[in-house]
Amino acid sequence: MKNEENYFKHEKAIVESDSIGVGTRIWANAHIMKDAVIGERCNIGEGCFIESGVRIGDDVVIKNNISIWLGIIIEDGVFLGPNVVFTNEIEPRSTFPKELARTLIKRGATIGANSTIIANRIVGEFSTIGAGSVVTKDVLPHRLVYGNPARIHGWVCICGRKLTIAKFQSQCICGREYHIEQDNFRQIK
Amino acid sequence: MKNEENYFKHEKAIVESDSIGVGTRIWANAHIMKDAVIGERCNIGEGCFIESGVRIGDDVVIKNNISIWLGIIIEDGVFLGPNVVFTNEIEPRSTFPKELARTLIKRGATIGANSTIIANRIVGEFSTIGAGSVVTKDVLPHRLVYGNPARIHGWVCICGRKLTIAKFQSQCICGREYHIEQDNFRQIK
Amino acid sequence: MKNEENYFKHEKAIVESDSIGVGTRIWANAHIMKDAVIGERCNIGEGCFIESGVRIGDDVVIKNNISIWLGIIIEDGVFLGPNVVFTNEIEPRSTFPKELARTLIKRGATIGANSTIIANRIVGEFSTIGAGSVVTKDVLPHRLVYGNPARIHGWVCICGRKLTIAKFQSQCICGREYHIEQDNFRQIK
Repeated sequence: MKNEENYFKHEKAIVESDSIGVGTRIWANAHIMKDAVIGERCNIGEGCFIESGVRIGDDVVIKNNISIWLGIIIEDGVFLGPNVVFTNEIEPRSTFPKELARTLIKRGATIGANSTIIANRIVGEFSTIGAGSVVTKDVLPHRLVYGNPARIHGWVCICGRKLTIAKFQSQCICGREYHIEQDNFRQIK
Repeated sequence: MKNEENYFKHEKAIVESDSIGVGTRIWANAHIMKDAVIGERCNIGEGCFIESGVRIGDDVVIKNNISIWLGIIIEDGVFLGPNVVFTNEIEPRSTFPKELARTLIKRGATIGANSTIIANRIVGEFSTIGAGSVVTKDVLPHRLVYGNPARIHGWVCICGRKLTIAKFQSQCICGREYHIEQDNFRQIK
Repeated sequence: MKNEENYFKHEKAIVESDSIGVGTRIWANAHIMKDAVIGERCNIGEGCFIESGVRIGDDVVIKNNISIWLGIIIEDGVFLGPNVVFTNEIEPRSTFPKELARTLIKRGATIGANSTIIANRIVGEFSTIGAGSVVTKDVLPHRLVYGNPARIHGWVCICGRKLTIAKFQSQCICGREYHIEQDNFRQIK
């Protein structure tokens, strides 16, 4: 099922994996290594590099110039802005190799353009990391964070819009509603 | 007039546009899409991506690994340092596409290496954005800004040098002179 | 001695230099220009660009999407995380070219992912620059710096680990020991 007839590969892309989902598009100068697993309906931008052993879910948008190293897991519906940077080593030195660290980007999260994600972190479901951030701590679900280092600046809807809160409630213009009380966040509609 | 005899294209560049100005140079692994318009005497660095519909003026320097998305306009004489990052969506989510935002980089501006420009902004004429900045607001002409978020740190000459001000006047070592009084900036020589 | 039989070149890399050290690996879409000199056992990641005249030492790790411009010297054992950005011009403008600036990255230093190094700086031996930093000043040997702008946050061992100090002494879990007293830093074992 997962063969080149079911996904789009630019003629200048290098695809060594045979696990590419239906409807996925892979653009020029991208390189998908052997044994990387890419879901359905993804977009892999120009100059991206997906290392062997990486798993990427369905409906993931990966803009240009992003390298996804072994140890990083990208769940369904994640959006990675252009030039987002991941790492998979803590305290690296050229001649002192260390154990690989893991990073998990959970369902529906957005990582803004040119952000840097320190290894060994979890980016929560439907959270948003503003462009140009440096993420040094775990990010909780639905949180908006940005800056260097990234700090909490609010809450975001499943649809990506920033939420305004009144009397512990928030209604997004998309129609979804949430109850938000300190760290307690739940969708009520 | 605009054909491959009049500009330089590295053999590993992909050029699908037929609107490339005389004297422009396009380097390896760059990709200029169909219906992008590039002016004269530009330099398009390695690994750059210019999307369909983008317009770039004359004498623009675009260093390596820069993606210029639909919605971004680059005027004459702009300098983009390596790995500058643009965006064209506000509050992006993978499965909730939103209207494209526009960004305008005006004549003679400099955007320092690895800076991030949030969508929907105007970067003014002959302004300078220091390396590694995150631009979240419009930048006025001739302003020097830097940091994350980028803040105002002074004024710059047409030639790019930082200006020192005494008694509302500034003379650059290039010979140009300016009157600068609060937000009032004008060239007097 | 330095010919293609002694180093690995991905079939999609462009190597115009004939000075590549034994055991070095050059990955897809990297481009090494003529008259660049690369040492032994280096790793040059995907999408990297090494300009003519650049010198890179032995045992250097250069992750993906890094451009090393003329004027930048990389000594032995340096680690450059993905998307590290160098510059070689101060106050650049498209139509006002200026003298090239130099940057020296000394033996054993680590530059974290997506950091930006302003031109005309020295990064000291075995220093560590945290991911996402903007380096605006020289970095002294064995210093840990990070942030935008990068500020001093401690000391690091030759092996890359952060050092904790008690009574002017520090013992790393790798076995090395240091005497550290204000700016006075020396290895004692």
